[in-house]
Amino acid sequence: MYKGEGILSPPTVLRLSEYLLILEQFLKENKETISSRELAVAYGNNANQVRQDIFHLKKSGRVGQGYSTRELADEIRFSLGLNKIKKICIVGAGNLGTALATHVPFSQYGMKLTKIFDVDKNIIGVNINDLKVEPYSNLVPAIKDHEMEIAAICVPAPVAQDVCDDLVKGGIKGILNYSRVRLKAPDYVSIQYQQVICSFMQLTYKVNNT
Amino acid sequence: MYKGEGILSPPTVLRLSEYLLILEQFLKENKETISSRELAVAYGNNANQVRQDIFHLKKSGRVGQGYSTRELADEIRFSLGLNKIKKICIVGAGNLGTALATHVPFSQYGMKLTKIFDVDKNIIGVNINDLKVEPYSNLVPAIKDHEMEIAAICVPAPVAQDVCDDLVKGGIKGILNYSRVRLKAPDYVSIQYQQVICSFMQLTYKVNNT
Repeated sequence: MYKGEGILSPPTVLRLSEYLLILEQFLKENKETISSRELAVAYGNNANQVRQDIFHLKKSGRVGQGYSTRELADEIRFSLGLNKIKKICIVGAGNLGTALATHVPFSQYGMKLTKIFDVDKNIIGVNINDLKVEPYSNLVPAIKDHEMEIAAICVPAPVAQDVCDDLVKGGIKGILNYSRVRLKAPDYVSIQYQQVICSFMQLTYKVNNT
Repeated sequence: MYKGEGILSPPTVLRLSEYLLILEQFLKENKETISSRELAVAYGNNANQVRQDIFHLKKSGRVGQGYSTRELADEIRFSLGLNKIKKICIVGAGNLGTALATHVPFSQYGMKLTKIFDVDKNIIGVNINDLKVEPYSNLVPAIKDHEMEIAAICVPAPVAQDVCDDLVKGGIKGILNYSRVRLKAPDYVSIQYQQVICSFMQLTYKVNNT
């Protein structure tokens, strides 16, 4: 089997993306090589799992007993397709949308936050991280004109499906959905659910069973 | 094997928590019974997976060809331990902390948001969702006095480890970490990472491979 081929499972993709952040933290600390065991300790899993995940990469950046931190990071970026720039928009410029626009380091991971939309007259025109919030009525044409591929839905639940419909109309390919509503969209649109309360439930369960 | 016993894996817990939200959406629409197939379609997986997950519950709420929506929801709540009230605090009342405090329906899932802390004099004293933001210096005693079990870290990366240390000092049992830093904490403290950029990377990968 040629490594790097084949579709990675969502849990593998998630772990690889999380390894990437750890590797970058190591790079900041000038740690130039890393063993699967060290990565497993930092991540909180085991070395076997780490090696299995790294096996999916095209090259493993292996040097002697460990890996080159930088090469491994680069290979993860390549395997996840972060080398192809993706344009992103955020729909809803409330606290959550503003938090995403302000704190998520899109540009470091091959993404370009291109537009933020809202319906609220008091928010339209406000600058968030050098982007002016635009009226929601611009959404559909803007997705088409700017070839935006990914949108984060940060609007209240009752209007989430309407926003989804408009995003699909504009030609969006992927939606990160922060609302608690299951969205209906054509199969060619990837939807990722980000239901914050579910993370708290997971943590509650861990706390009850540790 | 007695169903309901044994520790559920993190992916199973996550799916169950997400099924719970779907079941509640169905209840709002007065859909009183549901088949594993319908739940699978709403979730985006397959009926076998749904049945396997439901098998872990103590009772399955099975009625005829399907499940009682309400009983299944109740059993998930019970299995995830949401019937035992957990006290929660949020550290950092910026956009993200404010978004969590404002939009996450803690009280509907056995959690009680009890305190919000910040170091910023301009934010301390502000009311967020009926809670007054308290000075960070209150953190350690407040965790002890109120027997808070879970904290969400919503502070900038450079101070995240310090906050973690203080939370541990106070006796916290679970941490939801929104910073991009891997935290060091004793084994008896459960840490759940919530790295928003990783969700975007997962979605990028899906979009590239759909």
